[in-house]
Amino acid sequence: MSSSPDTLARLEQTIASRRAAAPDQSYVAQLNARGLPVIARKLGEEAVETVIAALSGSREELVGEAADVIFHLMVLLAAKDVALADVLAELDRREGVSGIAEKASRNA
Amino acid sequence: MSSSPDTLARLEQTIASRRAAAPDQSYVAQLNARGLPVIARKLGEEAVETVIAALSGSREELVGEAADVIFHLMVLLAAKDVALADVLAELDRREGVSGIAEKASRNA
Amino acid sequence: MSSSPDTLARLEQTIASRRAAAPDQSYVAQLNARGLPVIARKLGEEAVETVIAALSGSREELVGEAADVIFHLMVLLAAKDVALADVLAELDRREGVSGIAEKASRNA
Amino acid sequence: MSSSPDTLARLEQTIASRRAAAPDQSYVAQLNARGLPVIARKLGEEAVETVIAALSGSREELVGEAADVIFHLMVLLAAKDVALADVLAELDRREGVSGIAEKASRNA
Repeated sequence: MSSSPDTLARLEQTIASRRAAAPDQSYVAQLNARGLPVIARKLGEEAVETVIAALSGSREELVGEAADVIFHLMVLLAAKDVALADVLAELDRREGVSGIAEKASRNA
Repeated sequence: MSSSPDTLARLEQTIASRRAAAPDQSYVAQLNARGLPVIARKLGEEAVETVIAALSGSREELVGEAADVIFHLMVLLAAKDVALADVLAELDRREGVSGIAEKASRNA
Repeated sequence: MSSSPDTLARLEQTIASRRAAAPDQSYVAQLNARGLPVIARKLGEEAVETVIAALSGSREELVGEAADVIFHLMVLLAAKDVALADVLAELDRREGVSGIAEKASRNA
Repeated sequence: MSSSPDTLARLEQTIASRRAAAPDQSYVAQLNARGLPVIARKLGEEAVETVIAALSGSREELVGEAADVIFHLMVLLAAKDVALADVLAELDRREGVSGIAEKASRNA
């Protein structure tokens, strides 16, 4: 899929631009108007739904719920002024550390 | 950050290749050896930790937990043979539908 | 509060009797008609809401969300034919084992 | 089970008394020493594990995870100085309101 690499960068821009929209015209603006606890709650709920879709749902449901997790995670990051690039850089950094030892060090 | 667009594609390849590794040498292989419920549980737990980091943690903790969510979501997708591209395509598809109406239709 | 000891036993009976009701006349019947994944999802969502209420909500919100957790946990147990008494017996059993050592043994 | 009605009242007392113990001698004291976000996180994680046990675990696992949810919910309530009686009173109050209409009013 040629469009994939740009999807998240484009989504990040869309979220940033919609935060300034009227709450009745944008779901992102609506979430931000309701506040950080509501945005965080949505992420938690979508993760629960992803867990359930993975264990007892269809492939299509899992794809939809995974998209919901990524979307609401990005709305949460934006609300906290954290760039997606910082999260990707953290993933890059971990790639440089070898598997189990790295996870063990994070959990220590 | 110039490396960002490729991070997730590279991570997806790394996860795919590590699934075949020995469980005592790879965290990904270890998760897969323990089974889908454990992988799903990890995603749920990391999402809870992200919620808490967003509400009461540092910026650095939020970045780390968000990376954990993305990582374990990708391990879960791989375990269910779902390509990240399919999830990104779903996000692209939603971009084409305008904000609130689209979310409303998903929730119907 | 003198009524407390009986609240959960009475709630368990109410849930059992409502499972046989028409879905349009009982929330419990409605949940059961929608199936176990939906009941499980509700428990997960109410737990997320309790976490958030504890960290950033009012005392009243925490009380309400905690009640939601207990209620949906009991609907879930009923749907799996598990008696609340079995869960309370497990809590009693753990009381007999001393604190940290006991938790450590569960996590091993 | 004749002991059931008293289990939660006794557990609440045990939790209250252990909060003052040395963290290295009590799991409850340890949780409180680590702070509210950690206690809240534990509740969220145990709820995720209960969801998974209900969907793909054994009856015994579900009993154990449900006990973990109740235990950590009670530690969280204690940490916020909320009496279990207040949560049970809220459940009693709802019993007095009829099913679906009541849930609808809470969600409004």
